[in-house]
Amino acid sequence: MLTPAGIAGYVAANRERWLEGYKELVRIPSLSADPARDPELRRAADLLLKHCAAIGLANVQLLEEGGKPTVYAEWLGAPGAPTVVVYAHYDVQPEDPVELWHSPPFEPTERNGRIYARGASDDKATLWIALCAIEAWLRVEGSLPCNVKVFLEGEEESGSASLPAILQKHHELLRADFILSADGGMLHADTPDVMVATRGIAKLEVTLRTAAKDLHSGSFGGAVANPLAVLSRMVATLHDMSGAVAVPGFYDGVREPTAEQKAELAAVPFNEGEFFAAVGARPGAYEQSRSVLERLWLRPTLEVNGMWGGWTGPGNKTVLPAEAHMKITTRLVPGQHPERVADAIKAHLRSVCPAYATLEFKAMGGGSPAYEVPPAHPALNILDRVLGDVYGKPTVRVRLGGTLPLCALMKQFLGIDTVAMSFSTGDEDYHAPNEFFRLRSFDRGLKAWCAVFPEIAETGADAFAGYRPA
Amino acid sequence: MLTPAGIAGYVAANRERWLEGYKELVRIPSLSADPARDPELRRAADLLLKHCAAIGLANVQLLEEGGKPTVYAEWLGAPGAPTVVVYAHYDVQPEDPVELWHSPPFEPTERNGRIYARGASDDKATLWIALCAIEAWLRVEGSLPCNVKVFLEGEEESGSASLPAILQKHHELLRADFILSADGGMLHADTPDVMVATRGIAKLEVTLRTAAKDLHSGSFGGAVANPLAVLSRMVATLHDMSGAVAVPGFYDGVREPTAEQKAELAAVPFNEGEFFAAVGARPGAYEQSRSVLERLWLRPTLEVNGMWGGWTGPGNKTVLPAEAHMKITTRLVPGQHPERVADAIKAHLRSVCPAYATLEFKAMGGGSPAYEVPPAHPALNILDRVLGDVYGKPTVRVRLGGTLPLCALMKQFLGIDTVAMSFSTGDEDYHAPNEFFRLRSFDRGLKAWCAVFPEIAETGADAFAGYRPA
Repeated sequence: MLTPAGIAGYVAANRERWLEGYKELVRIPSLSADPARDPELRRAADLLLKHCAAIGLANVQLLEEGGKPTVYAEWLGAPGAPTVVVYAHYDVQPEDPVELWHSPPFEPTERNGRIYARGASDDKATLWIALCAIEAWLRVEGSLPCNVKVFLEGEEESGSASLPAILQKHHELLRADFILSADGGMLHADTPDVMVATRGIAKLEVTLRTAAKDLHSGSFGGAVANPLAVLSRMVATLHDMSGAVAVPGFYDGVREPTAEQKAELAAVPFNEGEFFAAVGARPGAYEQSRSVLERLWLRPTLEVNGMWGGWTGPGNKTVLPAEAHMKITTRLVPGQHPERVADAIKAHLRSVCPAYATLEFKAMGGGSPAYEVPPAHPALNILDRVLGDVYGKPTVRVRLGGTLPLCALMKQFLGIDTVAMSFSTGDEDYHAPNEFFRLRSFDRGLKAWCAVFPEIAETGADAFAGYRPA
Repeated sequence: MLTPAGIAGYVAANRERWLEGYKELVRIPSLSADPARDPELRRAADLLLKHCAAIGLANVQLLEEGGKPTVYAEWLGAPGAPTVVVYAHYDVQPEDPVELWHSPPFEPTERNGRIYARGASDDKATLWIALCAIEAWLRVEGSLPCNVKVFLEGEEESGSASLPAILQKHHELLRADFILSADGGMLHADTPDVMVATRGIAKLEVTLRTAAKDLHSGSFGGAVANPLAVLSRMVATLHDMSGAVAVPGFYDGVREPTAEQKAELAAVPFNEGEFFAAVGARPGAYEQSRSVLERLWLRPTLEVNGMWGGWTGPGNKTVLPAEAHMKITTRLVPGQHPERVADAIKAHLRSVCPAYATLEFKAMGGGSPAYEVPPAHPALNILDRVLGDVYGKPTVRVRLGGTLPLCALMKQFLGIDTVAMSFSTGDEDYHAPNEFFRLRSFDRGLKAWCAVFPEIAETGADAFAGYRPA
């Protein structure tokens, strides 16, 4: 561990103040999916802008290209040392269904060594931890061991629509050796893991229409088609009896797992029974011939994230609705292309749509291919050392079932790779009610983020030569 | 026509004032399905209470048994003459989706000889017309030719949950020869019809659950079952390839149409192409071997009136929801029992529900069997005469695809039959945005309601002897 003792002391002395700052950030309902929450999102950006300046970062600014603003800040006082972009996002998922929360979603509440709130885990905890570690170095040592560019995105949870434009415009500003993402997800709270791949994503919104207007179910039912029934029959064709996706062309380019990948999966401590029990679910859906980890990490999926139509309020309305709607996402693996997969789903839905209904597709944007870190990338060794030391045991190689669209985008626009050092754990209900973050992860995170900068410096800029643009 | 000339003159002189009163009633958003609208509903009841007293009705009162209040009023000054209960309802359907209205749903707006507003047709128009006719008789003649009991329900649109209790408690107060309902629906605005049957209804709300909480679709998709996909597959089993309902036992007790019923259908002016074109729909769904009218009037149906789950707001949320919901109603024909049909659907849904999901049924109440008027009931002749005269052509026998729960309830609790004299037409988008009522129906309705009371008196109480309790 290369962290000077003075920094560890500063961390201990400032922990409570930092926790308060973290809670202040979490209190802001910075949703990016709901335009009505835009003022709150901008309030969070403003808080971070001021905080970055206060802890001694330079060139603090908002990068904005027609979407939500990214907070940028840098410290470039280590010429010759590697440069790392620290990525995180300050926007959060919607809090609904709000009635299922045990404490108000935007009032961080401590229970059993955890902080409960929307965004408490995803991604405001590690975002804040990274800034605290930078503060500790700059306050105690007056410098960081390597160059740091802080990049805090504001629309990760809604598809990063303007991220490509920001990266394209500011690719010089963002020149670096690699990206260290504070966003990601650990498999177990007490097992250090290093994520080597994320699945991609493709999105689709579908509207099916059977009439020009809502009708009375007594006067038109049994004559005019019911769009909810029609859409249900179409959804029923999306998977086959084995639980595999039944959309023609969906699996084009998907490879069976290699022996090395299977060995990596086998090394991961993972109990399928506990996995289902932890979320009150039962196994049996989807490809039973494959392990759960293989399905989550190496196989693509197709999910209906939302479906609605007709009367959904209290009581009863005998309506025959004119429209039914659904939102679909698919998780992609290497070899699949978001646009081609979306096109395959559209073609399939068109092929099973009866003549008495019409389909309309709404572009959702934010598609992203899957991503894999090059197996010999030096950042993987840095994380092995830092995390192995903090947790006192060796790391395991894991993959993310979810998507970090930035991995593919950073590679495309900046030419560099992304590794993640997140302290959020998969059971922390991000994207669901009662999201929480563990206080012990807060402390481990501070230790790791303070330690990672000297490890990067120790690795040296030359080690990254083959992994960055000339 | 037995209407005295003085009454026709009074109608002409008061038409504009009456239209204003009708609009005042329509302006009140008296929804019964949404508890938040209860104060508005009660405001409508209060307006009607005062109006009944003002036009000279006696014993004016609210009948209330734990639900929404019924407005009751009577005029019993014709001893020996028949007694008719005039039924109507003052509650209305929800106005959503409100963004599809061309004028505010609770601001009655005149366009092209029509009044547009929620409740303008169903059922505030004929309700108001009936009261205007009573006013005309009492103001001009000082009396009505027969005894009249006005019964204005407040929860017809949400299932009439407390109607049985009201009828049970007040069956002496409501003793009468038959019910003349101002609620119903004409097939064509310019063809007089007499409704001889209504379909019944059974209701069900279903919740399907696959996990204890909402999950991240990237971390759990492909492992934990998606409740929207599971529910969709179950909905897909509700109908067979021919479009018939595929629930075992659903058709138990349903009879094929008789020769007389087929002749009645053939006499109805009905163009299937125009029927679909009028609502922007196409044929092809459901039992193609049967005519549309047969499907609407003589066959039971099963409709999903609402279905929802997951993220339904703007933008995108990569959630794997824990629950999916739907509301189902079925329209019943004679021979079917609401509880048995609901039980058959529950049993079917349980039988197709996979082991990794759980089903929960919520009792919706308000089930009602189908209803048929006895073929020789004297009220049918009364309507034939009154409507034939107003429209200048003979009436046709029609059925209602929808449900008037009161028909079965009145028979059960009061022992008398219900016929309808409504001037709402099936194309008037009740239960949908842009509901409207035709001003020419307003005038015809006034003429008919003024004429019906002397026709009832002329028929005489003895004619109803076989159709009321001794």
